[in-house]
Amino acid sequence: NMTSIEELKLRVRELENELIKCKQKRCTAIPRIDKMSAEVVDSNPYSRLMALKRMGIVEDYEKIRTFTVAVVGVGGVGSVTAEMLTRCGIGKLILFDYDKVELANMNRLFFQPHQAGLSKVEAAEHTLRNINPDVQFETHNYNITTMEHFAHFMDRISYGALQEGKAVDLILSCVDNFEARMAINAACNELGQTWMESGVSENAVSGHIQLIIPGETACFACAPPLVVAANIDEKTLKREGVCAASLPTTMGVVAGILVQNVLKYLLKFGTVSHYLGYNAMQDFFPTMAMKANPTCDDRYCRKQQDDYKVTDQGGPFLLFLSLSLYFTHHDLGCIELVSEQTEEELHAASGPVPDLPEGITVAYTIPEKETGVSGGETVEETEQSLEELMAQMRKM
Amino acid sequence: NMTSIEELKLRVRELENELIKCKQKRCTAIPRIDKMSAEVVDSNPYSRLMALKRMGIVEDYEKIRTFTVAVVGVGGVGSVTAEMLTRCGIGKLILFDYDKVELANMNRLFFQPHQAGLSKVEAAEHTLRNINPDVQFETHNYNITTMEHFAHFMDRISYGALQEGKAVDLILSCVDNFEARMAINAACNELGQTWMESGVSENAVSGHIQLIIPGETACFACAPPLVVAANIDEKTLKREGVCAASLPTTMGVVAGILVQNVLKYLLKFGTVSHYLGYNAMQDFFPTMAMKANPTCDDRYCRKQQDDYKVTDQGGPFLLFLSLSLYFTHHDLGCIELVSEQTEEELHAASGPVPDLPEGITVAYTIPEKETGVSGGETVEETEQSLEELMAQMRKM
Repeated sequence: NMTSIEELKLRVRELENELIKCKQKRCTAIPRIDKMSAEVVDSNPYSRLMALKRMGIVEDYEKIRTFTVAVVGVGGVGSVTAEMLTRCGIGKLILFDYDKVELANMNRLFFQPHQAGLSKVEAAEHTLRNINPDVQFETHNYNITTMEHFAHFMDRISYGALQEGKAVDLILSCVDNFEARMAINAACNELGQTWMESGVSENAVSGHIQLIIPGETACFACAPPLVVAANIDEKTLKREGVCAASLPTTMGVVAGILVQNVLKYLLKFGTVSHYLGYNAMQDFFPTMAMKANPTCDDRYCRKQQDDYKVTDQGGPFLLFLSLSLYFTHHDLGCIELVSEQTEEELHAASGPVPDLPEGITVAYTIPEKETGVSGGETVEETEQSLEELMAQMRKM
Repeated sequence: NMTSIEELKLRVRELENELIKCKQKRCTAIPRIDKMSAEVVDSNPYSRLMALKRMGIVEDYEKIRTFTVAVVGVGGVGSVTAEMLTRCGIGKLILFDYDKVELANMNRLFFQPHQAGLSKVEAAEHTLRNINPDVQFETHNYNITTMEHFAHFMDRISYGALQEGKAVDLILSCVDNFEARMAINAACNELGQTWMESGVSENAVSGHIQLIIPGETACFACAPPLVVAANIDEKTLKREGVCAASLPTTMGVVAGILVQNVLKYLLKFGTVSHYLGYNAMQDFFPTMAMKANPTCDDRYCRKQQDDYKVTDQGGPFLLFLSLSLYFTHHDLGCIELVSEQTEEELHAASGPVPDLPEGITVAYTIPEKETGVSGGETVEETEQSLEELMAQMRKM
């Protein structure tokens, strides 16, 4: 029986070694780094970021480690957004999502097939911690739009920063439905919290990002969103046998321009865009500034505007409208139908309504009390060429 | 001793189970799929791509499985490019790179710390196979610019397609140096092979993509590149203690617009851009068409032009020049100094020369025999505003 014992001992040693190797392959922990170094060696994960200082782009790159960013929605855009911020060495990330990873998500970056079935926030945290152990993570596996969770969401964005008891520096909306955007909008208007919106159209070929500084720039309720997902969530889409298209390219571009805007905003370099659209069919990227709407439905938005004392509202707000018509015309998008608007007004405002899959409605709303743009005029505007629109932009 | 044997047996069983779990976590193989389905179920990785057909964007999405794309350079842009194509279900990918994964690459997407030390093509293939087992992979761990490997590179792009003995459908240049771009350019001009160029500036805040159809559009030798990496490779940079900056955002955006252009080109939808630039500081994305230069130094380019019978060269070529000056002025970029140009000509051509880190030289070359743009004129052009440049674009 001695042989048997020796054999078994040998087998145990073999298995132990194999297990160690397997675990190492899966996630070789890299050491935490106390202080970002600009040293140019292969083993320094921050050398190429610290080089931004020497190149004259960013004055104080290390400051990135002091910031806390909340990402709401860890799907096609949110997961890549979180990965980019993690690789840039952000101080803390707070992730919110209530969905699970599915194989149907594999046509977008970030999640891998072996993560199917895990909650998105759990799977994301595991991957991101392995990529950069210097980042702090806090995850919440719930839907922020329910009453109970909304209160907790408000609490975490108000007090969840790295600096105990402080509010986060920025909230990024990477959600796929109207309700979640409105929830973030309501929270941020009440708290005076700056955030950035992002979105990708249901046909996968356009998207946008938007900076919202309560009281200063247009909030999500101030004006009709330019490119908006249908106001039905993914589960509804599936139930009805309808499925939105998505592409890793469009979502990667939107995440890229979103996080670029975050870096520019936090580290103070370049021009922070108030609105940047992406039309993939024509490689058209409109940018513009949008001021808050004094007749906004959100009373906290109007209160923030009073505090900010907005003046001269007309110009940018009109500009915003003409470009949104361009989008509704070209996107075949799925835009939320606002109830106080009739079908006729809708047609007049947004030009030809495209054929849409069942369960998705088109909508467009001109903010009430808006003057200077008549219904008839706007129909024609949707027929304008890109050049004419851009020429118009400059005139404003 | 029986206890000991029982204990050992128990330990072996425990370890075996743990090992199985570890291996499963690392790479749960998903089954291959013979035929892309549009069925909307959580387990279908292609449902969101096939939805592009129902949305009216792509006519025949399944055709993606018949295409072979070669990616040269699997770094910050190339790895994300390969991942996007893999997730889109491309038929076959041929990857070329001779570099190893390092922790210093962790500020860009795709590679993970546990892959440090592996060759980039090996690490990439492993990750990509796990993501989508339906894609065929072929990897080459060598430098295409050496004589021997260049011949092999020519062979693989000529005969490496899914369809035995056929040329690849497209080559994507995701390299970081001038020599490799010139090697791809030479090969493609000789073979009449369509390819796309991509690049990110050394200061990490601008990039571009370019479609090159030999004889039809400007090749890499036809005109000075708009945004170019320094003509010193990464190893030289490191040796001199100089290190280029990079950002996951800029590289993600460039990979996204590159693969979007690939999808539009292969699946025939939208407008395929000949040139699309990205200036992250100002969120400026110039697009334009560029025709081949009849006086190009590459004789194969001139031969392809004869075959294509190019007419009316002037307009787009001038446009190209005025925008390249915009870039050289704003980029603080690292552009290759062409020997036949004097320092004075350089200053005259590219406006104020920015302070650059040691070891990186600025260069700009106006193609010989170019008429209609005098040196003095171009200096002033670099001082123009974006609006003026775009107005000028439309006049051409």
